[in-house]
Amino acid sequence: MLAEIITIGDEILIGQIVDTNSAWMGRELNKIGIGVKQITSVSDNADHIIEALDEAQKRADVILITGGLGPTRDDITKLTLSRYFNMPLRRDKVTLDHVEALFAKFNRPMIDVNIRQADVPDGCTVIQNKNGTAPCMWFEVNGKTFISMPGVPFEMMYLMEEEILPRLKNNFDLPFIVHKTILTVGQGESFLAQQIEDIEDSLPSHIKLAYLPKLGQVRLRLSATGKDELKLKIEMNIYAQQIIERAKAYIAAEEDVPLEKAILDMMKAKNLTLSTAESCTGGYISHLITQHAGSSTVFVGGAVAYSYDLKEAVLGVKHETLTEFGAVSEQTVKEMAAGAITHFKTDYSIAVSGIAGPDGGMPGKPVGTVWVAIASKDKTVAKLFTFSNKRIQNIERSATAALTMLLNLLKQDLN
Amino acid sequence: MLAEIITIGDEILIGQIVDTNSAWMGRELNKIGIGVKQITSVSDNADHIIEALDEAQKRADVILITGGLGPTRDDITKLTLSRYFNMPLRRDKVTLDHVEALFAKFNRPMIDVNIRQADVPDGCTVIQNKNGTAPCMWFEVNGKTFISMPGVPFEMMYLMEEEILPRLKNNFDLPFIVHKTILTVGQGESFLAQQIEDIEDSLPSHIKLAYLPKLGQVRLRLSATGKDELKLKIEMNIYAQQIIERAKAYIAAEEDVPLEKAILDMMKAKNLTLSTAESCTGGYISHLITQHAGSSTVFVGGAVAYSYDLKEAVLGVKHETLTEFGAVSEQTVKEMAAGAITHFKTDYSIAVSGIAGPDGGMPGKPVGTVWVAIASKDKTVAKLFTFSNKRIQNIERSATAALTMLLNLLKQDLN
Repeated sequence: MLAEIITIGDEILIGQIVDTNSAWMGRELNKIGIGVKQITSVSDNADHIIEALDEAQKRADVILITGGLGPTRDDITKLTLSRYFNMPLRRDKVTLDHVEALFAKFNRPMIDVNIRQADVPDGCTVIQNKNGTAPCMWFEVNGKTFISMPGVPFEMMYLMEEEILPRLKNNFDLPFIVHKTILTVGQGESFLAQQIEDIEDSLPSHIKLAYLPKLGQVRLRLSATGKDELKLKIEMNIYAQQIIERAKAYIAAEEDVPLEKAILDMMKAKNLTLSTAESCTGGYISHLITQHAGSSTVFVGGAVAYSYDLKEAVLGVKHETLTEFGAVSEQTVKEMAAGAITHFKTDYSIAVSGIAGPDGGMPGKPVGTVWVAIASKDKTVAKLFTFSNKRIQNIERSATAALTMLLNLLKQDLN
Repeated sequence: MLAEIITIGDEILIGQIVDTNSAWMGRELNKIGIGVKQITSVSDNADHIIEALDEAQKRADVILITGGLGPTRDDITKLTLSRYFNMPLRRDKVTLDHVEALFAKFNRPMIDVNIRQADVPDGCTVIQNKNGTAPCMWFEVNGKTFISMPGVPFEMMYLMEEEILPRLKNNFDLPFIVHKTILTVGQGESFLAQQIEDIEDSLPSHIKLAYLPKLGQVRLRLSATGKDELKLKIEMNIYAQQIIERAKAYIAAEEDVPLEKAILDMMKAKNLTLSTAESCTGGYISHLITQHAGSSTVFVGGAVAYSYDLKEAVLGVKHETLTEFGAVSEQTVKEMAAGAITHFKTDYSIAVSGIAGPDGGMPGKPVGTVWVAIASKDKTVAKLFTFSNKRIQNIERSATAALTMLLNLLKQDLN
């Protein structure tokens, strides 16, 4: 069973946006046993869209189309599909009610182009889009399935998760693909590969191991394909346990969760609380943490302290420490971490101070110099990192480094 | 002059990596007047690569190919090109010297697969890759140009900037493509389209207008194609000014920048400072702001105050306010904003308190209820929003709402 993804929109081709939808869709389709044969991005041009549709259906069984469903005149996907499948537009009552309700809710006047969002090719199945005005349209033509969705990521994701993936699973006799992901931190992929080489060599042909590295973390993903889901899970778990046992020192989670979520789960189970004191990461660490539902039972809050003033007033860093050693120093970052424990009354704290760049480097402290401290009520540990001269990368790497240090301290303390 | 980008690699199709190369290449090609007709991602499969090459040369004049040039056995791009163009491999002396020098520099032993990196199809122009072992290969066949590059982003970018873009500019008589982007906030795209309909209708055929909506923001992008860059810019600017004048109330920036960057630039020009007091956005707003180089001249810092304790201790919210009206209330969010002004000593502040969800709703305050306050030294304004039950979306929408309120207050104050 093969799929092709067609993303429509001039903004992709001129590079104004990066197409992140396709990677997400590829991952989700793979999980249910559908491989992606090709990803094609085309402009808002009817002839070109039709050419892409023609070519895609020669290669794939399911063609997923995103984008070009907005109300403005550069959005021509719906008209093109109507022409391609020779299905004239009809006004769909359910969609119109939904669009009207949305406009009523936000108390906005509806104009003609909004009403036309309810027009659909006569012959497709209409699936309502709870998060927007453009519905999802599902076509079954000549034994092929065409599914058109909005390109707005959260609208597309919701439709995929709630409607499209379940229907695809239902319509086709797909093999089971079972995944088990193990999150490791603090070791490179080639080192890990060497450590578990014999386990990897012993895997049967229907179980595959992939290394997914990202900023100091490596996800080990086992995927097994077959007809008997339970048998697959039991079998895969045997190999997973061997890997976990071997790589024990680097395991952050035995499931596919972000690092900060693994930490939250660990702390929640022990009723521990956390606070942050961020300088160069500028709130990124607290943002990572508070993305997760239920984070408030562990995370109390934190300070984003860019200025000396704030570091003193909110975190209680001593003025002399700042003037003598500077904001980016072991002494300051330790006082920030200790200050967070005292002022925010938590069991653990994370503090980061560094030079994210691209400017602000100084002799002995180039751009990319970052101090991280982790404190508990008993102790404070600090570590120096030297990253690159790229600001966003430095922020992300600092966050991963800080979370890894916290994880390691927690593993020590909780053992 | 049209280009097509073909990216090769299984890791793209299974969603293991997001293809960021194509967007970057699209931007750079556009700058020199080459439009990208299509972006195609295919797997490491010879027949499929050949099919993609066949189709691409029907549509485009220049075909840029990335990926599949590594030394391992799943990398088959070079062999496939050799077969497709019927050009047997020859060992290239200059490339071999370069590869040997690289290995000598890093003091690593060369094995057979490394030596084979110097084999190239006999008939292509070889361009050395200073950052890696796989050279760039340039083919001129049947009036079409095919350029194969490594997929590693920094190798590809260097080759594009230093070698490929200059050669393309030299080889072809290219038109200029000029873009002008206007950022609007607070109005939907259909409303904006209606407001500027007559301006859009009056655009000459070589100037196009696109609407790029994203979470309460709409980017209006004008693109003009022609031979005379200066004339195009002047001409486009006339239409841009008409749009700006018409949509004045919703304009955040007259260039292609994120909303928070538009605000930073506006505040920096007036030497104004900003702080944040975030509850449900959990540091996301300060993260957005501090992503930008130079943000520290405007942004002093802020608090992420999840708990009552922190709201009182760090922001000075009165205990009675919290107990009487609750954390998610007009009274609390106004005290948070005023507290940030006082405690963090800034000219402006942003405060957000809401129920991001998915749990935590209560009678009269469902999940998605968010209060935003903006304070200056003179006044505090607050507004209630009702978003959805999706946590991440609520966080993003709250941030956009808060930034939009700040922008509007700034526009008022600075006029």
